[in-house]
Amino acid sequence: MSLKPSITTIASPQLLDLYNLKDSIFVVIDVFRATSTIATALYNGAKQVIPVTNTEDCIRIGKATENSVTAGEREGKVIPGLQHGNSPHEYGIDFIQNKTLVITTTNGTKLLNMALKNGAASVLTGSFPNLSSIVAYLKTQKKNVILGCSAWKNIINIEDTLFAGAVATALKEDFEINCDSTTMAMSLYESNQQDLLPFVKKASHWKRLSAYGLEEDLKYCITPDVANILVMYQNGKLLKF
Amino acid sequence: MSLKPSITTIASPQLLDLYNLKDSIFVVIDVFRATSTIATALYNGAKQVIPVTNTEDCIRIGKATENSVTAGEREGKVIPGLQHGNSPHEYGIDFIQNKTLVITTTNGTKLLNMALKNGAASVLTGSFPNLSSIVAYLKTQKKNVILGCSAWKNIINIEDTLFAGAVATALKEDFEINCDSTTMAMSLYESNQQDLLPFVKKASHWKRLSAYGLEEDLKYCITPDVANILVMYQNGKLLKF
Repeated sequence: MSLKPSITTIASPQLLDLYNLKDSIFVVIDVFRATSTIATALYNGAKQVIPVTNTEDCIRIGKATENSVTAGEREGKVIPGLQHGNSPHEYGIDFIQNKTLVITTTNGTKLLNMALKNGAASVLTGSFPNLSSIVAYLKTQKKNVILGCSAWKNIINIEDTLFAGAVATALKEDFEINCDSTTMAMSLYESNQQDLLPFVKKASHWKRLSAYGLEEDLKYCITPDVANILVMYQNGKLLKF
Repeated sequence: MSLKPSITTIASPQLLDLYNLKDSIFVVIDVFRATSTIATALYNGAKQVIPVTNTEDCIRIGKATENSVTAGEREGKVIPGLQHGNSPHEYGIDFIQNKTLVITTTNGTKLLNMALKNGAASVLTGSFPNLSSIVAYLKTQKKNVILGCSAWKNIINIEDTLFAGAVATALKEDFEINCDSTTMAMSLYESNQQDLLPFVKKASHWKRLSAYGLEEDLKYCITPDVANILVMYQNGKLLKF
């Protein structure tokens, strides 16, 4: 028996029930763009981020929360009834400092709730902008790690898989890896880490979002450590640590 | 709109409901070892292969079929009540010629039935031993192709993903690819195609089966074109074409 904790990658929320999450640290990954934007808002001084799954909750919680901003997009445009979009570039320090961001993120929030329901001990959110903070934290915890890709409507995607590969690659000396999804994610990341862009441009999500003129956003979302803080979920809120 | 047909990879049977299979050619992939053994038995002259999901059906159909062999393994040993194992090396020409092989293959048969139920126009079975036959056939058909990985108890595996990558790589000029699972499978295959073995040795399934002394079997299963025939499903039977 190895004494090292394990790393497991769940490539789609639809595969989550196959895995034992008990007592693990679960990392919610939604590179384009929810977990990138969340890290950015908190890095720039947001008081907290409240993730919700739908527009109605977003409006309701926004109204009930002092000094808040509601955010969400559909097909590249701000959802009617909400105030802002999902772009990390909207959440600069001058705008977001000390505010509460209430953000609709279907795939990511659903996965976060599933992780908690299935016994995860704690939940982080991660993307390239806060890669090193996640890695540093996980190294100290000596707990099993689950890298949960939000995917797109449950369909496996390149960008979340690459981030899982980046985390696992950075942790491989300290963890046991016997999960083929993790091994494949690491190989893909390692083959492309000098320049992720050409491979990420093959992603369905890249094609979809770049058609809305979001290329600069997407490039930011795959840039390591530009909003390098640890994001942890506590009592319905994502907070900076 | 592209006029090329598409290639899609389904990394686990548990993701099958996310995809439109209608009018597609569906390739069932179970590299270790069902679809490798099936290709080998038919290449060596088996009259037909009847895939079943459980031991009871295997025994029953074996009894009802003249000149048949029943086969199935659990944890590296022949299942009590059946006659043979799942190793391709058991099905040489001297033994299997003109016989009907009734084989239990939980993951692969389940996937085959799901494909038909969900509207696939036809079903092939594939693995490295019959790679070129599959590729040549698909090139002529001008239909959408679904590469269905059997996985292991729905958990994504390296070996089936690599075979999907091998097929897609060989077909990429003639097909449209806008499926991240396919793009990732191709990248993994292309990075390792000069020698698949080192990467395949990282697979969970390799570790599990090689502990039963099956290394030579596994090496055979990743060797291209050693049983190079087309295997197609028709009326409950897998036949050589």
